[in-house]
Amino acid sequence: MRYKCLVAYDGRLFSGWQRQAKARTVQHVIEQGLSKIYKAPITIHGASRTDAGVHALGQVFHFDTETVLPQNKCLKILNHQMPEDVRLLACEPCAEAFHARYDVVKKTYRYDLYMGEYDVFKAAYAMHYDRLPDLERMQALATTWLGQHDFRAFMASGSDKVITNRTIYRADITRHDQVVRFTVTGNGFLYHMVRIMVGALLDVSEGKRTLEEMVSDFETGDRNRFKRTAPANGLYLTETLYV
Amino acid sequence: MRYKCLVAYDGRLFSGWQRQAKARTVQHVIEQGLSKIYKAPITIHGASRTDAGVHALGQVFHFDTETVLPQNKCLKILNHQMPEDVRLLACEPCAEAFHARYDVVKKTYRYDLYMGEYDVFKAAYAMHYDRLPDLERMQALATTWLGQHDFRAFMASGSDKVITNRTIYRADITRHDQVVRFTVTGNGFLYHMVRIMVGALLDVSEGKRTLEEMVSDFETGDRNRFKRTAPANGLYLTETLYV
Repeated sequence: MRYKCLVAYDGRLFSGWQRQAKARTVQHVIEQGLSKIYKAPITIHGASRTDAGVHALGQVFHFDTETVLPQNKCLKILNHQMPEDVRLLACEPCAEAFHARYDVVKKTYRYDLYMGEYDVFKAAYAMHYDRLPDLERMQALATTWLGQHDFRAFMASGSDKVITNRTIYRADITRHDQVVRFTVTGNGFLYHMVRIMVGALLDVSEGKRTLEEMVSDFETGDRNRFKRTAPANGLYLTETLYV
Repeated sequence: MRYKCLVAYDGRLFSGWQRQAKARTVQHVIEQGLSKIYKAPITIHGASRTDAGVHALGQVFHFDTETVLPQNKCLKILNHQMPEDVRLLACEPCAEAFHARYDVVKKTYRYDLYMGEYDVFKAAYAMHYDRLPDLERMQALATTWLGQHDFRAFMASGSDKVITNRTIYRADITRHDQVVRFTVTGNGFLYHMVRIMVGALLDVSEGKRTLEEMVSDFETGDRNRFKRTAPANGLYLTETLYV
């Protein structure tokens, strides 16, 4: 039987999602917990391989097992084996053909800029930015990304992605008190794409480049024109949607 | 010259305040940072030796140095050498006779219980408590602690304190949305005293003992009657006052 699970995690103490030999990763601690419960090695397949320090409210993964837990207690049993910074929010049987990574239709990320006084309790959960950015300029730039585009200019090296076309359905700048939030929904994202988008938003806000320059630089597809990458701590994977 | 500093820290990744041979402690990282700035070994003296996982918004320490930093840039220079989970909020010259630990007149701690759905981002910053406690019973018990009492029943073993009389000036239970907060001000606190107080508050809220039983158990001075110690993650040292 295949199971589809929804999971939230605080990325602060993780070296990202993907299993590595000697680092604490989200995939590893979840696999450890599940293997203990099911008394057999379990491999999970996540929708997104989030980087070190990136948080998730809506990551999805699947795994296979023949063992059936009582459905009403299932989440409680699973969470009992999870560390305090990982929480399964849902776990249910799904089609055998379902694949958490390949079947994704839309993903949403948000990026938080915190504009208040430096706060030790917020340091790992938002990028500290000590002035009010120019929300209008940022929104104007974000709007140019809507629809289908070749986003290769926003792809960090180290990625093996060959097809770099992506469709963006939503790209909003909103303000919530001392937080300025960029929310972006797309059918997929290239390596570091959201963090490079935030870098570009800050550059246009700070007047380092005009909107017109940003648009023409983007069209060249040259990553070297978009070197600013916002830090991982402000990034949250908030939703993963399937058909 | 002696300096008095106010510091905030997120206790999550610290093995408490006090320097230890092989653990990351607040005292150690601050001393490291200061020693780098002043190019000489600096020893600091903190007002409170907070435990592993305990947070601080208002810890105070002092240290001595002959080097004078430009006063208007001093905090910036110092914080530049601090990790992201430690922040100096003030640093100013004080009397040579001032001692951060021995001169304390009042200290305030708060303890947070979080009653909402389990949240990975709150796990290290409040005790998760999945029902609304009985605030009236808790306040009634807390009120019995006001004034001067022998608090030896609330002292964990491992302490070398001989004098166990303390004066409590304030002991309030308040609710802020999904957080129930215990705020306590005293002229000093015994080892684990606030966390044992919270354990007693929860016992009385849950009906495990009546207020009358609590009061008579307290009067025996027997720690064995107060074994419940709330976890460190909900505790914050919020203020340290001097004359």
